Amino acid sequence: MNLINEKIVDYIQNHKNFLLLTHQKPDGDAIGSAIALGKGLKKLGKQIDYFVQFPIEQNINLFNEINYFNEMKNSSYDALIVVDCSTWSHICKPDKIPEYKTVINIDHHITNEGYGDLNHVEDVAAASELIYRLLKQMKVPLDEEMADALYTGISTDTGSFQFSNVTSETHQILSELYQYPYSYANIARRVHHEKTLMQMKMYGAAIGSTTLLNDGTIAWTVLNHKTIDQYGGDINISDDIANIGTNIKGVDISVTLKEVEKDIYRVSLRASSKCDFDVSSIAKSHNGGGHNKASGFTFRSKLEVLKQEIISRYNDAGNGRNQQ
Amino acid sequence: MNLINEKIVDYIQNHKNFLLLTHQKPDGDAIGSAIALGKGLKKLGKQIDYFVQFPIEQNINLFNEINYFNEMKNSSYDALIVVDCSTWSHICKPDKIPEYKTVINIDHHITNEGYGDLNHVEDVAAASELIYRLLKQMKVPLDEEMADALYTGISTDTGSFQFSNVTSETHQILSELYQYPYSYANIARRVHHEKTLMQMKMYGAAIGSTTLLNDGTIAWTVLNHKTIDQYGGDINISDDIANIGTNIKGVDISVTLKEVEKDIYRVSLRASSKCDFDVSSIAKSHNGGGHNKASGFTFRSKLEVLKQEIISRYNDAGNGRNQQ
Repeated sequence: MNLINEKIVDYIQNHKNFLLLTHQKPDGDAIGSAIALGKGLKKLGKQIDYFVQFPIEQNINLFNEINYFNEMKNSSYDALIVVDCSTWSHICKPDKIPEYKTVINIDHHITNEGYGDLNHVEDVAAASELIYRLLKQMKVPLDEEMADALYTGISTDTGSFQFSNVTSETHQILSELYQYPYSYANIARRVHHEKTLMQMKMYGAAIGSTTLLNDGTIAWTVLNHKTIDQYGGDINISDDIANIGTNIKGVDISVTLKEVEKDIYRVSLRASSKCDFDVSSIAKSHNGGGHNKASGFTFRSKLEVLKQEIISRYNDAGNGRNQQ
Repeated sequence: MNLINEKIVDYIQNHKNFLLLTHQKPDGDAIGSAIALGKGLKKLGKQIDYFVQFPIEQNINLFNEINYFNEMKNSSYDALIVVDCSTWSHICKPDKIPEYKTVINIDHHITNEGYGDLNHVEDVAAASELIYRLLKQMKVPLDEEMADALYTGISTDTGSFQFSNVTSETHQILSELYQYPYSYANIARRVHHEKTLMQMKMYGAAIGSTTLLNDGTIAWTVLNHKTIDQYGGDINISDDIANIGTNIKGVDISVTLKEVEKDIYRVSLRASSKCDFDVSSIAKSHNGGGHNKASGFTFRSKLEVLKQEIISRYNDAGNGRNQQ
C-alpha cells in the first residue's frame, strides 16, 4: 500500500484543533471515514469537532460518535480536514465558516479538484481505505466503533465488495480489520439489508409496478402518489429500488419514477454493468446529473412522452450492449 | 494459512484418475470448489471426471466446465475426491459407484464425519477456501474460470462476505484472487442479484403478503397457490424470500410458507442474527431439519394452528432476544 501524504501526517501530529467535514448528503463512506478519523485523532489527544449534514440515513446512523456531531466548541481551528468530497462547493460547511489555517483534503474521487493546502487524492474504492491507512501510519489502534465505521465505509462504497472498484488492497485492508477481535456480521446486516416494514412494503410495491419495455431491455418502475402516501418515505429514490430493473435478467436500463406531484416525477436511471449506454446523457438533457451508470433528474410532463424518448435514445445508440 | 494435509497433495501428485463428487443439491460452494479443483488438476495432466446432481441453480450455472459434468469416461478411479460434503450418505453418487482405491474428503463443515481415507476438514467459511489453498500449495495457476469459481464459492457461502463465518484469512484469499487480472463484479451481480422477471415478481409478491405478528417480532409470509401458478418457480423457498422477514427491523423470526397443495405447505424458518431462539426446535417437532438459524419442514393442516404454535413457542422461550 502507498503511504498517505507525509505532510498531512506531520501537520496533524504537530497541531491540535481540527474540524472534520465531508460532502453534503453524507453516505456510509462519508460518515465512516469521518468517525474513524475523528475518534482516532481524539486518541492522539487532538481536539476534534465535526460538522455534518443531517439527517443521516437510518441504515448508517449506527455510531455513538454521531452524538458529538455539530457541537462546534471552537471559533477557529488549525485545520479543516475534509474527507470523501471531490469539490470545495460540495462540502457541507457551517453558514459561518470558522477561522482556519489550513485545509487538508483526503479523497478517493479521481475527479477531486485538489482544493486543499495539503491533498491526498488516490483512486481507491472508498475514502475509508485511505483513513485506515492514515491511522495505521500514525500507529493509532482501532476500537470497535472505529473498525465498524471503516467497515461501513468500505462495504457501502463497494456494494458489499461486489463493485468493479474493489481491488486486492481493499481485501487486504479487510483482512487486517478482521485481525481485530470484532464482529462485522451485525453491522453488515444493518447496513445492507435491514428495512422498516414500510420501506420493505415500498420495495415490494416497486417490484409489483415494474414492467419491461423494448423487448425486455428497459425496465420501467413507477411509484405513484398513492403508494408513497401509503408507505411514506422521502422524495429520493433509494438505491435498492432504483436497481430493481437492472437486477432483472436481460435488462440494460432501469428507469424508476417517483411521483412528487401530479405530472411531476423524480426519475432515477441506472445502466446494468453489461451495458455501455450512458444514462447521464438523458439526465443532462433534462437538467439532471450523475454519471454513465447512475443518474437522475426531475421530469414535468406525461410519462408516455418520457417513455418514448428513452426507448428512442437507447435504440438510436445501438443498444449500447458491450461484450461482457 | 495452514497447509492442506500433505498426504492429500502427495496422493494427488502420484496418481492419475479422479472422480470429483460433492453434496446433493449443490450450491455455489459445491460447484465452485469442484470446478476450481477439477480444472486445476487437469492443468497438472490428471484425468478428471465429475458426478454432480442436476439441475444446477440458475444463478450459479455460470461455468463452461459444467458441460463436462457427468461424462464418466472410466469404470475405475484412483480416488474419489469429495468436496464440501459432511457425510458419506449426503454425497451425490452414481447409482453404480465405480471402483476406486481411495476416498479423499476435503470439507469445511466442523460436523464432517471424516469418511475419507485421507481427510482435510477445517472450520473455514467455504470449501473453496481450502481448494484455493490446495491449488496454491500445488503451484497451479488459476485461469479466469477457476478464479470465478472460487470467488463464487466463497461469496455465496459468506453472503457476499457478510456472515459471521468470514475471517481475516477469507479476505486474505480474496486479496490474492484480486491479484489475478480478472474482474469479479459481473459474476457477483449474477450470483447475488440477477433474477428473471418472474423470480423478481414472486419476490415482490412475497413482500406484499408479509405481515407482522406478536408485536412485530415474528414475520409471516405466505405464497399461495395462485401466486405460485402465476410466477412459476419450484417447490423450494429461495433464500432471499425466506430472509424477507428477518430483514425487517424488529423481527426475530421469519416464517415463510409456500402452498404446495390445499392445506399442505412447505415452511421455512429463519432467526435473525440478534435472536437466540432455535428455529430448528420447531422444525424438528414437525419432522423437518436444519439448524438454529435456518430450518424447514412440511406442514399439513390449517395455518392458524401453526401460527399459534410458533407464537407460543417463541414467547415461552422468553423471546430468545440476546444482548447484541
